[in-house]
Amino acid sequence: MAAFMDRDFLLNTPTARWLFHEAAENCPIIDYHCHLNPREIWEDVRYENITQVWLGGDHYKWRLMRCAGVEEKYITGDASDYEKFCKWAEVLGKAIGNPLYHWSHLELQRFFGWHGTLSARTADEVWELTKAKLAEPGMSARGLITQSNVSIVCTTDDPVDSLEYHEKLAADKSFATTVLPAWRPDKAMNIEKDTWAGYLAQLAAVSGVEISSFAALKQALSVRMDFFAAHGCTLSDHALNYVMYAPASEEEIEAIVAKRLAGKPVTAQEEAAFKFAFMRFVAGEYTRRNWTMQLHYGCRRDNNLTMFGRLGPDTGYDCINNYTPSEQTAAFLGALEKDGALPRTILYSLNPNDNQAIDTICGCFQSSEAVSKIQHGSAWWFNDHFQGMTDQLTSLANLGYLAGFVGMLTDSRSFLSYPRHEYFRRILCRLLGEWVEDGRFPEDREILTEIVRGVSYENARRYFAFQEKN
Amino acid sequence: MAAFMDRDFLLNTPTARWLFHEAAENCPIIDYHCHLNPREIWEDVRYENITQVWLGGDHYKWRLMRCAGVEEKYITGDASDYEKFCKWAEVLGKAIGNPLYHWSHLELQRFFGWHGTLSARTADEVWELTKAKLAEPGMSARGLITQSNVSIVCTTDDPVDSLEYHEKLAADKSFATTVLPAWRPDKAMNIEKDTWAGYLAQLAAVSGVEISSFAALKQALSVRMDFFAAHGCTLSDHALNYVMYAPASEEEIEAIVAKRLAGKPVTAQEEAAFKFAFMRFVAGEYTRRNWTMQLHYGCRRDNNLTMFGRLGPDTGYDCINNYTPSEQTAAFLGALEKDGALPRTILYSLNPNDNQAIDTICGCFQSSEAVSKIQHGSAWWFNDHFQGMTDQLTSLANLGYLAGFVGMLTDSRSFLSYPRHEYFRRILCRLLGEWVEDGRFPEDREILTEIVRGVSYENARRYFAFQEKN
Amino acid sequence: MAAFMDRDFLLNTPTARWLFHEAAENCPIIDYHCHLNPREIWEDVRYENITQVWLGGDHYKWRLMRCAGVEEKYITGDASDYEKFCKWAEVLGKAIGNPLYHWSHLELQRFFGWHGTLSARTADEVWELTKAKLAEPGMSARGLITQSNVSIVCTTDDPVDSLEYHEKLAADKSFATTVLPAWRPDKAMNIEKDTWAGYLAQLAAVSGVEISSFAALKQALSVRMDFFAAHGCTLSDHALNYVMYAPASEEEIEAIVAKRLAGKPVTAQEEAAFKFAFMRFVAGEYTRRNWTMQLHYGCRRDNNLTMFGRLGPDTGYDCINNYTPSEQTAAFLGALEKDGALPRTILYSLNPNDNQAIDTICGCFQSSEAVSKIQHGSAWWFNDHFQGMTDQLTSLANLGYLAGFVGMLTDSRSFLSYPRHEYFRRILCRLLGEWVEDGRFPEDREILTEIVRGVSYENARRYFAFQEKN
Repeated sequence: MAAFMDRDFLLNTPTARWLFHEAAENCPIIDYHCHLNPREIWEDVRYENITQVWLGGDHYKWRLMRCAGVEEKYITGDASDYEKFCKWAEVLGKAIGNPLYHWSHLELQRFFGWHGTLSARTADEVWELTKAKLAEPGMSARGLITQSNVSIVCTTDDPVDSLEYHEKLAADKSFATTVLPAWRPDKAMNIEKDTWAGYLAQLAAVSGVEISSFAALKQALSVRMDFFAAHGCTLSDHALNYVMYAPASEEEIEAIVAKRLAGKPVTAQEEAAFKFAFMRFVAGEYTRRNWTMQLHYGCRRDNNLTMFGRLGPDTGYDCINNYTPSEQTAAFLGALEKDGALPRTILYSLNPNDNQAIDTICGCFQSSEAVSKIQHGSAWWFNDHFQGMTDQLTSLANLGYLAGFVGMLTDSRSFLSYPRHEYFRRILCRLLGEWVEDGRFPEDREILTEIVRGVSYENARRYFAFQEKN
Repeated sequence: MAAFMDRDFLLNTPTARWLFHEAAENCPIIDYHCHLNPREIWEDVRYENITQVWLGGDHYKWRLMRCAGVEEKYITGDASDYEKFCKWAEVLGKAIGNPLYHWSHLELQRFFGWHGTLSARTADEVWELTKAKLAEPGMSARGLITQSNVSIVCTTDDPVDSLEYHEKLAADKSFATTVLPAWRPDKAMNIEKDTWAGYLAQLAAVSGVEISSFAALKQALSVRMDFFAAHGCTLSDHALNYVMYAPASEEEIEAIVAKRLAGKPVTAQEEAAFKFAFMRFVAGEYTRRNWTMQLHYGCRRDNNLTMFGRLGPDTGYDCINNYTPSEQTAAFLGALEKDGALPRTILYSLNPNDNQAIDTICGCFQSSEAVSKIQHGSAWWFNDHFQGMTDQLTSLANLGYLAGFVGMLTDSRSFLSYPRHEYFRRILCRLLGEWVEDGRFPEDREILTEIVRGVSYENARRYFAFQEKN
Repeated sequence: MAAFMDRDFLLNTPTARWLFHEAAENCPIIDYHCHLNPREIWEDVRYENITQVWLGGDHYKWRLMRCAGVEEKYITGDASDYEKFCKWAEVLGKAIGNPLYHWSHLELQRFFGWHGTLSARTADEVWELTKAKLAEPGMSARGLITQSNVSIVCTTDDPVDSLEYHEKLAADKSFATTVLPAWRPDKAMNIEKDTWAGYLAQLAAVSGVEISSFAALKQALSVRMDFFAAHGCTLSDHALNYVMYAPASEEEIEAIVAKRLAGKPVTAQEEAAFKFAFMRFVAGEYTRRNWTMQLHYGCRRDNNLTMFGRLGPDTGYDCINNYTPSEQTAAFLGALEKDGALPRTILYSLNPNDNQAIDTICGCFQSSEAVSKIQHGSAWWFNDHFQGMTDQLTSLANLGYLAGFVGMLTDSRSFLSYPRHEYFRRILCRLLGEWVEDGRFPEDREILTEIVRGVSYENARRYFAFQEKN
């Protein structure tokens, strides 16, 4: 019987153990997709207690508490931080099989040096020790990043963002980690939303381009992409319902835009046509600029209307949408390829059933521009757990080239989430260890080390070609 | 090598063993969804031979025999009971990997005390011993229920049912198990069927409400729900193609109903609109009455038209329908939630690919009214096997709160099916044991016992709030 | 730790080992579906070097090289055979988890007697030894088939094919393996393609039936089926987008055919109606002739338009299509069954999520005409790996009758692919071994041997009722 989450956590074979401890463990982290707030990094924020860090904005934890029947008062309501933490400890203590169990304990071990098990029985002890520890130097935003051995962080930024804090961080020689913006133009694409016209006005203001047509919108976006590129951006990100293929003529798109700008609603078909045209345009721009395009899809958001009204988006009320037609994904990439405008691309579906379809789509559009130019992204969000990561890695290995995978990202809002990279690396080493010890791959230390270091760090470094600070 | 199906069957770690034997094994059974015939319980039926018990109405077994190429004569035809059993024994003897192998042997062990392996070679031995055993006291319907330690059984009943036998059973102090009706109004919902109008006439007769409109149908249903509630019903069940979201005005629904009552067919769109309105109404009623709503979907029924003509429904000719749009499921629950009319709900899809989508949908609609108010039902029908249960439990643990799960049900027509609860508990303990012994959860006996007893028994007891007999 | 791919490769329990070595290993191979070129068998082709064998036409390997970022020059381009092999060796050496790793090493072991591990480091050694070995007698097409213990091979042939080489092979007593044609009439079905009319002209020429109507097309096909039957064909194969159910009247179909023959395009609905009518017709013909119908579906082909223009079809640019409605598959088979025209059928979906739906569909249409008359085909193409085969076998065992499975086929274009049968048998024995050693099935050597020999060889022999040469 393995000890609970000790230094060999998840490393159930000798091969897994040497792979992790000798090849993976010491690789720096490139966190190429997260939702950290650059201002908080700049300001080097600190936290008074563990509730602020853990429960201040983490919809994963809120969701688990709701599943356990906890009153909203103790989740996002007006209960005290101490009360909220006690509820959390009670729920987590019984959350067997949930990734939050492992994430939370990895964070307690790595950042707080505590190796117990959190539950109602230990809540007070953990409350006190984390409070004391959070007051120490090194527990600020920058401190947490630094002690996690993070070389590069890419945040997620709106085209209208001033990138003020990225600029300040770039200029600050006292902080070694490179913090780069990533381009997320969802608001410019979501033509069906009531907020679209208002958003275009903002975009017009910052770009200096009056937006009265699709052509003008494209120009404005291009201006802003130049601005982002000047700040080191080489990565974009899109949240899509699904990857759409709905070709229409330039005139049709202009008519749709004109109609919408006149305040009229668009049909589902018009929405798809516009979004396809939008994506086709930005993909071409990314290709020209040598950026990578990330596509996140398969999510239905804000399902609980009452709670959306009370708490807004990203508060734990999203679900998997199983309408994710692989035919359209393939046709979309095919259209870009034919245009000569297919950038390096990473596909993430929230529907875990898409693993195999994605890997086979990736295989249709590779090229010698990059190793695994079209990537199957790491198990995303609801799939970001032992089973989900194992399934994604297995599918990728079966159908593609695991050795070329760019690996893990946190996708997180929290400065404590870096152990998710460690969690991923342990799962990777476990899986490879099992294959080796089962006689399915030779115990070739050189090749295995190259693969594991590649997936942990080197592949991302090569693939994204970030400009590092130092 | 583990011995074949001994007392530690499936319990492959020390943790699994103590969990099962100390925490799970002795919990009573709450079988909150089955298809037992209450009259047979009341009459305390007995069986002459094992063919009558096993092959009299079990479409699982019929299906396996057909897969093995057995002539229908030996399945539902006029071969003798002995001949049928011999064919079954021959087929089962080679049915490696099929849950019927385990179910049948658990039944032979628990009810007949026989620990051999059934095949063509042992058919005669088993035929004789089961015949002798079935003649003993304690092998009647009630005896089988009693020796299985069943505290509560919920049958599946039509709104027009008189509940005569439930009444008799409730009054009979000599039988300790509580037998409650559950409300299954499919016939009132299936507007597209030729039998709908005839069924409404029946419903009108028993409710005393003339049904010439949707409003009247709702009233009639409400009258019958009161009647069911008076007999202890707190649980409903629905068989749906998929969970539909198709909002329409009250006037539109009335027009659809009027058209159909006039004998005209309805379009697919009208059918969906009516069914959505129907479900929305009953869900509101369930909420008011503090009932639980079970939704079973993802099935295509009666695919073999020749055999349907010969044998009727529920004879082994159904299959998984993979059209199960999670978007509509989420929108349906979202509409109820907005109405303030979302009852405790259990979602079961026959499509095993839906596990993760369901768990994420559940997470959007939880509340402090109950622990895990919205439940992901136990692996249903075609998924009710080692792999299917393991996958459902894993997904639920990954994405929700396994400790709040209401657990197993038999969904069975047979009085011998209770060992399926044992089978489920063994699989649960095995899974948790593997996690603990892999260092993924602490070996905390108190918490593990609480989780296992919860899923085995306590959660269902709390969740459904049945009125127990004694 | 198991040694790398030794004689007990994948056989991780004593039960697996005796099952494989005593029951499975020595069974002859019936390769009932492949893409070997009968002319190459007749001409007994030889290869100069391993690049010609391995990389001459294998889109699996091309795809992996592209995933690894290799330039097309080294894949299908004008680099030398030696250079291509070196690139391949380098990529394969790091292809952990990919079935090509196992296939390639099994081929090196079985045909070349080399038990090392291929990578950049050993490329030269393998290049030389395979070159020498390929010059030996016994390494020709026929030699490779013979040393693989293949009793029957079914190729894949167009209705217009002359079957000249099948005739010659049948007459040649010096070659013991039976080589039979299989009927693949996709070109006659694909009404939407520009090449359809031209193809019909070819079909008219060889059948002697002028094709100016659907009725005439059916007659021409019937003539050619008689011709194929006279050459021992008992097996058909279809590549479908998905299994369609779109009933239309004979008149409607004739109108669609007339329209298309007049050079006009057909709508998607017309295409589906025609294809359904086409399939319904041929299925009836197969039934009359006692042929088996294979349906391969769930593929989207030729996604990379640039590369399609350069290299044509079947060059590594296909992907999984996840639009595979089980409802239509069931309705299609249901329509045939009602017609009394449902032949023995094997269903293969490229979408691995379809495993369970397929198994439940099969179960609806079984009969005593054959053991498992409707079969769930072995894990196909992108799923033809350890995980995919394990999943298919598990689903089939859970939901059907594994003991009746007709088992493996290569689906290959290469004479070196026969070890894929060995790979399959090892995986089968491993899975059964795990179940037995876990106490889930008795260690009954007689029954286990019967099951394993059945799935490895005997079931296919009985099911297809081929006329063997000797």
